[in-house]
Amino acid sequence: MKIAIYGYGNLGRGVECAARQNPDVELVGVFTRRPPETVQTLTGAPVYAAGELAGFKEQIDVLVLCGGSATDLPAMTPALAADFNVIDSFDTHARIPDHFAAVDAAARQSGHIALISAGWDPGMFSLNRLYAGAVLPEGQDYTFWGRGVSQGHSDAIRRIPGVADARQYTVPVEEALAAVRAGQTPQLTTRQKHRRECYVVAEAGADRAAIETAIKTMPNYFADYDTTVTFITAEEMKRDHSELPHGGFVIHTGKTGLHGQHTHTIEYRLTLDSNPEFTAGAIVAFARAIHRMHGRGVTGCQTVFDVAPKDLSPLTPEELRAKLL
Amino acid sequence: MKIAIYGYGNLGRGVECAARQNPDVELVGVFTRRPPETVQTLTGAPVYAAGELAGFKEQIDVLVLCGGSATDLPAMTPALAADFNVIDSFDTHARIPDHFAAVDAAARQSGHIALISAGWDPGMFSLNRLYAGAVLPEGQDYTFWGRGVSQGHSDAIRRIPGVADARQYTVPVEEALAAVRAGQTPQLTTRQKHRRECYVVAEAGADRAAIETAIKTMPNYFADYDTTVTFITAEEMKRDHSELPHGGFVIHTGKTGLHGQHTHTIEYRLTLDSNPEFTAGAIVAFARAIHRMHGRGVTGCQTVFDVAPKDLSPLTPEELRAKLL
Repeated sequence: MKIAIYGYGNLGRGVECAARQNPDVELVGVFTRRPPETVQTLTGAPVYAAGELAGFKEQIDVLVLCGGSATDLPAMTPALAADFNVIDSFDTHARIPDHFAAVDAAARQSGHIALISAGWDPGMFSLNRLYAGAVLPEGQDYTFWGRGVSQGHSDAIRRIPGVADARQYTVPVEEALAAVRAGQTPQLTTRQKHRRECYVVAEAGADRAAIETAIKTMPNYFADYDTTVTFITAEEMKRDHSELPHGGFVIHTGKTGLHGQHTHTIEYRLTLDSNPEFTAGAIVAFARAIHRMHGRGVTGCQTVFDVAPKDLSPLTPEELRAKLL
Repeated sequence: MKIAIYGYGNLGRGVECAARQNPDVELVGVFTRRPPETVQTLTGAPVYAAGELAGFKEQIDVLVLCGGSATDLPAMTPALAADFNVIDSFDTHARIPDHFAAVDAAARQSGHIALISAGWDPGMFSLNRLYAGAVLPEGQDYTFWGRGVSQGHSDAIRRIPGVADARQYTVPVEEALAAVRAGQTPQLTTRQKHRRECYVVAEAGADRAAIETAIKTMPNYFADYDTTVTFITAEEMKRDHSELPHGGFVIHTGKTGLHGQHTHTIEYRLTLDSNPEFTAGAIVAFARAIHRMHGRGVTGCQTVFDVAPKDLSPLTPEELRAKLL
């Protein structure tokens, strides 16, 4: 399978590394909207200008779109589905139905296949919510995120006057996790589920108290959470907070039995050293799947829910049944 | 969807209860090889003699086979796939390829669909092994079972002279779990992964020391494990050990990044009050899926690997994308 990367940030670099871990995957190259000569790839993969993409239609089985969900992907995925099989990691949950509709129309029109929202949430967490609810229909699921870096929240802090740099960690509240695991199906407020840890480098002479107040009272981002603010030096930021760890939990509890007398807990937990590299791993597996599905005549927009698990693996169905079932 | 249950033990009762939790599922009845008048169902579902099954060909969308893997299912599933869409929970891992081949031949011949090995292991655990390995190909997975009742091991103890009753719990070793979760990819022996707790009711006058020795030295079942034997009264057995809890863990750790410098851990954990009732929940969800797949023209033997997750849920694809993705 031949893939190419469109957009070369953290996620694009993750896909470049993931391609090397899958012997059946060949990376044709990286396409960028920056001047290609300014981009140096990690593995020496060739870099092309985005404008050259049209010349590669016959060489790319699946084009991996590594743009952002806010502004890039809503236009990029439908547009490129006109000429390529495409996959993205669109992660704005509330806008998934609209994005699906736009991509589906474009891909059906062109006879291509597309898969949106690959990754871990949406992605692996979504799959676990679906499987758990199907097996235990009288139940409830809870999703917790963290401990991990939220890039959107980190950016919000950086926009406060006097802030030179910032890193924000989302942390699940242990008491809430314990109550859910115990099958208590609690009603949890935003504040009861997660707390937010902020590490901030202040500019020289900045009013630290004002920065702390600005963070803690910021609507939507921090006001509804128990938030801690810790000021650190630029050196500490670089030393202790230069990675992008993340993860979280999907926990589903449900009842069975004639009188609902038996309780079951399904817990799916991810602990990730690198959020973009794990997301890239999921993307490459689902790219393999849609390449196979397109070979069987499937077109239009798909999600992780539409993919039979066997299509994700390089192993044959016989090997899967003998080794993993 | 109309289902029927073939075989009415713990699993059959679980399916009977699970059917009531799924509004789109109608239970036609229970078929038994015992005299029907001797069988009383939990919910009042009608009971028929196994020999009457042929008269129900038009009324049953999926026949749920609740026999045992050792002797029942290897013959039962292929035979009944000649006349019905069937699903079973065949769980002898080493014999899955043979069972698949026999069921596939029968179902293809008759134009029916079959799904084997639904449940949690094989079943949900298998799915997690596949997904995790596809996303993190440079990695390793570990399966731990328990704490839970092993019925096969309990039966083995009951066959020892002087034993009136016995219950055996398989328990994962905490140190091994901790090492795996930490991403250490240890090589673990049988003894290092699980220990076995045995609760035994001795007959009056029995030689307890001889029973304990017979258990601890039993090849395959106990000799390779750290095994504890606790003698209890029949009353204690009934009070403390009358349920069938089980569960376990699938933990996959893998490396990513240019130099494999990032470690990721995927952990799937089940904590089940009732092994047969959870298995029944999985069976009903996969029965829904194969009924839909058969409606689209799919025939032959399937496994959980062949089923797109969307087919497991009563929700529409639009609802799934809006609510769970």
